[in-house]
Amino acid sequence: MSNIQITLPDGSVREFPQGTTGLQIAQSISEGLMRNVLAAKVNGEVIDATRAIIQDAQVQLLTWKDTEGKATFWHSSAHLLAEAIEAIYPNTKFGIGPAIENGFYYDIELPEGKLLSQNDFEEIEKKMLELARLKSEYKRTEVSKADALRYFTEKGDEYKLELLEGLADGSITFYQQGNFTDLCRGPHIPNTGFIKAIKLMNVAGAYWRGDVSRKQLTRIYAITFPQDKELKEYLTLLEEAKKRDHRKLGKELELFTFSENVGMGLPLWLPKGTLLRERLEQFLRKAQIKSGYSPVVTPHIGSKKLYEISGHWEKYGADSFQPIKTPEEGEEFLLKPMNCPHHCEIYKSKPRSYKELPIRFAEFGTVYRYEQSGELHGLTRVRGFTQDDAHIFCRPDQVKDEFGKVIDLVLYVFKSLGFTEYTAQVSIRDKSNQTKYLGDPADWEKAEKGIEEVAIEKGLNIVVEEGEAAFYGPKLDFMVKDALGRKWQLGTVQVDYQLPKRFELEYIGSDNQRHCPVMIHRAPFGSMERFIAVLTEHCAGNFPLWLAPEQVAILPISEKFHDYAQEVQAILEERDIRGYIDERSEKVQRKIRDAEVKKIPFMLIIGEKEQTDKTVSIRKHGEGADEGSIDLPTFISRFEAEAKL
Amino acid sequence: MSNIQITLPDGSVREFPQGTTGLQIAQSISEGLMRNVLAAKVNGEVIDATRAIIQDAQVQLLTWKDTEGKATFWHSSAHLLAEAIEAIYPNTKFGIGPAIENGFYYDIELPEGKLLSQNDFEEIEKKMLELARLKSEYKRTEVSKADALRYFTEKGDEYKLELLEGLADGSITFYQQGNFTDLCRGPHIPNTGFIKAIKLMNVAGAYWRGDVSRKQLTRIYAITFPQDKELKEYLTLLEEAKKRDHRKLGKELELFTFSENVGMGLPLWLPKGTLLRERLEQFLRKAQIKSGYSPVVTPHIGSKKLYEISGHWEKYGADSFQPIKTPEEGEEFLLKPMNCPHHCEIYKSKPRSYKELPIRFAEFGTVYRYEQSGELHGLTRVRGFTQDDAHIFCRPDQVKDEFGKVIDLVLYVFKSLGFTEYTAQVSIRDKSNQTKYLGDPADWEKAEKGIEEVAIEKGLNIVVEEGEAAFYGPKLDFMVKDALGRKWQLGTVQVDYQLPKRFELEYIGSDNQRHCPVMIHRAPFGSMERFIAVLTEHCAGNFPLWLAPEQVAILPISEKFHDYAQEVQAILEERDIRGYIDERSEKVQRKIRDAEVKKIPFMLIIGEKEQTDKTVSIRKHGEGADEGSIDLPTFISRFEAEAKL
Repeated sequence: MSNIQITLPDGSVREFPQGTTGLQIAQSISEGLMRNVLAAKVNGEVIDATRAIIQDAQVQLLTWKDTEGKATFWHSSAHLLAEAIEAIYPNTKFGIGPAIENGFYYDIELPEGKLLSQNDFEEIEKKMLELARLKSEYKRTEVSKADALRYFTEKGDEYKLELLEGLADGSITFYQQGNFTDLCRGPHIPNTGFIKAIKLMNVAGAYWRGDVSRKQLTRIYAITFPQDKELKEYLTLLEEAKKRDHRKLGKELELFTFSENVGMGLPLWLPKGTLLRERLEQFLRKAQIKSGYSPVVTPHIGSKKLYEISGHWEKYGADSFQPIKTPEEGEEFLLKPMNCPHHCEIYKSKPRSYKELPIRFAEFGTVYRYEQSGELHGLTRVRGFTQDDAHIFCRPDQVKDEFGKVIDLVLYVFKSLGFTEYTAQVSIRDKSNQTKYLGDPADWEKAEKGIEEVAIEKGLNIVVEEGEAAFYGPKLDFMVKDALGRKWQLGTVQVDYQLPKRFELEYIGSDNQRHCPVMIHRAPFGSMERFIAVLTEHCAGNFPLWLAPEQVAILPISEKFHDYAQEVQAILEERDIRGYIDERSEKVQRKIRDAEVKKIPFMLIIGEKEQTDKTVSIRKHGEGADEGSIDLPTFISRFEAEAKL
Repeated sequence: MSNIQITLPDGSVREFPQGTTGLQIAQSISEGLMRNVLAAKVNGEVIDATRAIIQDAQVQLLTWKDTEGKATFWHSSAHLLAEAIEAIYPNTKFGIGPAIENGFYYDIELPEGKLLSQNDFEEIEKKMLELARLKSEYKRTEVSKADALRYFTEKGDEYKLELLEGLADGSITFYQQGNFTDLCRGPHIPNTGFIKAIKLMNVAGAYWRGDVSRKQLTRIYAITFPQDKELKEYLTLLEEAKKRDHRKLGKELELFTFSENVGMGLPLWLPKGTLLRERLEQFLRKAQIKSGYSPVVTPHIGSKKLYEISGHWEKYGADSFQPIKTPEEGEEFLLKPMNCPHHCEIYKSKPRSYKELPIRFAEFGTVYRYEQSGELHGLTRVRGFTQDDAHIFCRPDQVKDEFGKVIDLVLYVFKSLGFTEYTAQVSIRDKSNQTKYLGDPADWEKAEKGIEEVAIEKGLNIVVEEGEAAFYGPKLDFMVKDALGRKWQLGTVQVDYQLPKRFELEYIGSDNQRHCPVMIHRAPFGSMERFIAVLTEHCAGNFPLWLAPEQVAILPISEKFHDYAQEVQAILEERDIRGYIDERSEKVQRKIRDAEVKKIPFMLIIGEKEQTDKTVSIRKHGEGADEGSIDLPTFISRFEAEAKL
C-alpha cells in the first residue's frame, strides 16, 4: 500500500497511508480533535469521517463549528429520532428526514390510530438519549437496487420504495445504526454517542413530497447538540428572540399594523412607528446632504416602456404586479419595483459634463414587488417597502472613490444605530451560467475587482459569493450581527455598468466626446421596513433615545398636578423633547408600570414637592428606582447630552 | 296695465308698470347705472336688459363686475366678430361662438381658399370697432322652425341648419345686430356700443362639434372690454403671467421635469424642487405636530375590496387607473386615489374610546388619478400628486371645534407663505339631484350648516355654491388671490358623515354604547404639486428666504479665493444655510448675472479684501448693487432674522 498526500486547510501537506480516514487524520493531530470530528470534506465533498481516502486530497475536518459539520450532526440525529420512533411505535413508515437551518425534521406515518402530540415528546427524547448512549456506529453499505427494493418491500415502507424508484442502480447506499436502517446518501457522524442533548420542538402535518393530493404525514421538528449547555443556550436564545420578535413588539409598541382590506404584506405605519421612521429618514437625509447627495422625488409608477428599456419587464414582468391600464388611450404603467429607471430619466433631463460628475440622486422611494402570500413575514418580507435609495452617476475613474465613500456612510449609519458587528458579502457572477447576466463580461470583471479592492482598503471583513450577483451587476451586501448573534442582510452597494447603457446616458468628457457614466446603486438601511424590523429585534424595542417615538412619560401623582405637568410638557416640546402626560386617575405605581411596558426612556414623576420646587423626579426605563428630583433645565441638558448622536 | 313688484338684491321692493325692462329699472336708479347694465337676472334667469318683465320678480342688474354680465358681454362680442367677418369675407359659414373664461371664440368656415392668420387680425379688429361704434341694437325675434330653416337654407349655412335640427319648434330665437343675424338663445347686451376695446388673441383649428371625423373649422379666439384701459391691463397681466408660468420657471429654476418614458402628468422632482418641497412639508409637519396631529404612512395601493367598501370603485372605477392583478392567486389592487380608506383601516386597528377622540392622522400621501392626456397641465393638472392630507375622527359634538382649528391652521399656512387675500367657498349639495350623493340627507344638512357657521365665526369671507359638494360630503375650499389677482383653489376642508359608516368605524361613548365617529378630510396646501405651482407664479420664483432651495451664492472673484469660499460655505452649512460656490473661471459680473437669473436671495462676493478681513461682500437679489462687506457672524444673524417664519 502506497502513501497519499493530504493537504490541510492551513496549507500543510502530510503523508498518510492510502485508505486513511478523516478520523485517523484527526487522531494524528490530537485526541481532542478526534473526539470532535463529525465529518470530513475531501476535495470539496463532505463524506463520513470513517470513510477511506484513497488518493491525494485537500482535507478539511469538520466539527460543530462548521455549518457542514452541524448539518451532518443533525442529519444523523434525524436517523436517531427515527430509530427511537421505530422502537416506540413499531411499523411506523418513514418519509424523509433532512437537516434544516436549526435542527432537523423527519416526516413519518405512524401506525394507524396513533396521533403524536407534545405529550409524547419526553418519551421520545428519553429513548433517543438512551440509544445515543449506546454509541452505535453509523454503518454505510452500498446496496443493489434489487436488494434495496426487497428490504423496504419486506419492511412495508412505501415511501422509501417510492424514493428508490428515482435512484439509479449502483448509486444506492444504506446507513444503519443500532436496529435502524435507512436509505441514505449520507454522510453521517461516526456514532450516536456524539449526540448529548436532544429537544423535540414541534409536530406538524406535511404532505408527502409537498403535494396536497398525497397523504399527510406527521412532521417532527427537533434539535440536538453535542453538549447540554449548548441546548440550554439555544432555548434561552429562542425565548429571547420570541420576546423581541418585531411583529410582537410592533404590536405592543404600536409601531405598525396590517389590514386585510388594504392587503397582505402592505404595512400601515401607526403614529409611533411613523415618528421613528421619519426620525431615521431625517438622520440619513442629513448625513446624505453632507455627503453631497441631491434629493429627488419620483412617482410610484412608470410607463411599461420605462421597464422595457431597463430590462425589468423582460426579466421579471411575468412574476410582478401586472400592468395598470388606463380607461382610454391604451397606455400601460407598472408599479415601480425599483427607483433606478426614474433616476436615469432625471439624469437625462439635461446634458451633463464630466465636471458635474459625480451626481448623486437620493430618494426614500417606495417600491412594490410581488411576493406570494405564503412568503410574507412581518416587516422583513413585504410587498411594498421604502428603500433609502440613491444612485451615483460617475466617471469610470471615480468609481472606486465613490464606492469607498458609500462604505464610509454605511459604517457611519451602523455605528450610530448600535450595530458594531458586521461582515460584508461580495456577490459576483455565477461564472458557469453567464447568460443570466446583462452586459459585457469585461465590465463585470472590472466591477467585481473594484468592489473587492476598496472593501479591503476600508478594512471590511469580506466573503465572496459566486452566483449571488443581481442580473445587472455585482454587489456588496452588509451583514450585521444583532444582539442575539443572528445575522441580517442590511445595506447594499451595487456597481452597474449596464443600466446607463440601456438608458443611453451620457456625459461630455474632457476630450469633448460622449461617454457613458457608471452607476452605483446603494441603500445603507436596505429598506426602512426591514431595517426597523432588525433594529427593533436588536434593541428589543428599547430604541436609542434620539429615535424613541416617545421619549418621556410625564406622570402626575394626582389630578392636582395636571397643570404643572402640562407646563413641563410645553417646555419640553419647545426643545423637541416628545412624550405624553398620563392623566388617568390611576395610582402612580400603575402609571410607572405602564410606561415601563411602553419602553419610554424617561419617566418624569410630578407631585407636591416637584410642583413647588419646579422640578421633576426622574426614573429611567428599566432601572427600577427613582433618581430623585432635579430642575427642568438640568434634566433638559442631561437629556440632550444622552440624545446626542 | 297693472303694476308689478320688483325685489332688488338689497331686499328693497319697488313698483314698476308691467312690461318694464332691466334698463328701465336701472334708469330709475341712475343714468350711470343704465349706461353700464349689460343684462338682467330675473328670478334666477339671465335675460336681455331690454326684455319686458311681466310679473313680480327678483331682479339683479348685471354689469361688467358680474361674471354673468361679462359672459353676456363676450357672447355679444362673438356676434360682433361674426358680423365683421361676414363683412370682410362674404359667404363665411358659422358654427358656434360662445363666451369662455377669458373672452370668447367663434368657429367659422371661411370661403374656399381663404386661410386666416395673425396678419388678418388688425383688419378684423378695425372692422369690429367700426361696427361697434354704430351702436347697433341686439334685436331678439322669436321664429318658427320652418322660417329659421328657410333663412339658413337660403344663406347656405349648413352648420346652423344642423344646430336647428336639435331644436324644438316654438323655442327658437334669432338675434340680429346691424347686418348680421344669428340663431341664438341669448341673452345679449343692449347694443354694440358697449364694446370699446377689442383684441383677437389666437387662431386655431377645431373640429365641428369636437368630432375628429367632421370638418375642421377655424376657431378665432378674442377678448373685448368696455374700456380701453381694461384691455391694456389685461395684456400686461397676460405678459406677466407668461413670465411667471410655473412650467417656464420650473424649468429655468430646475424644480421639476417630465419624461415621456415615465409618463405624462407624472412629475419628476429635481434636486432644487425636492429641497423646496421637503422644506414645505417640514414646515407643515411641524405645525401639525403642534396642533395634535399624528403622522402615519400607508402604501400607495389598496386591495380592490377597500374601494368597494369606500364606494370609490362603484363611483369612479371605470374612469380610473385600472386594477393591478397579481401573477397568481387572483388578487386585485388599485392605485390609491385618496388616503382616507387607508386611514380608516388604521382607525379600525384597535378599539377606540370617546376619551381618545379627536384622533388626527396626517400623511403626505401620494395619490394617483387618471386624467386624459389632453387635460394635463404642468403641476396643476397631473396624474400623480402628493396631498398634505389628514383625517380627523371625532365625536359629533367636536365637529365644529375641530373644523375651526383646521381653519386656523390653513390661515397660518397662507400667512406664512405670503397669501394675504383669500375667500372661502362652501360647496353644498345640488338639492335637485340628491341621488348623486351617498348618505343620509339629515347628516348632510347638519354638516352644511356647521361649516357655514364656523367659517363665519372665523371671519372668513364665504360664498356658498350649490351642487359643488363631493359625493361623500359638503366642503369648504379656500381660494387664494395671487400677486396678479388671479384666483386659485388651494386648501380644502371636508366634513364626512358617510365614510365612517361604510367602514363601520366605532368608538365606545361615555354611555358605554357604540357610536360612529365623524370624519373631517383636510389639506391646507391641497397638493404639494398644485401649491408649488401657485406659489411659484405668486412670487415669480422669488421664494421666501426660508424656502429657497439655494439661499446663497458664494462668488469668488478669482480662483485665488476658492479656499476661503469653501471655508465660508462650511461655516454657513453648519448653520443650515445652503448654497453653492461658483468656481467657474468667469468674471464676477457674469457670476452675479447668473445668480440673479437663478433668483438666489443672497450673493456673497469674495475677493482679496474679504479674504483678508474674513468678511463677505453682500448683494441681494434684484437690488442691483453691493451692500458692502460685513463679517460672517453678522451676516448669519441677519440671514437668520430674515429667514425666520
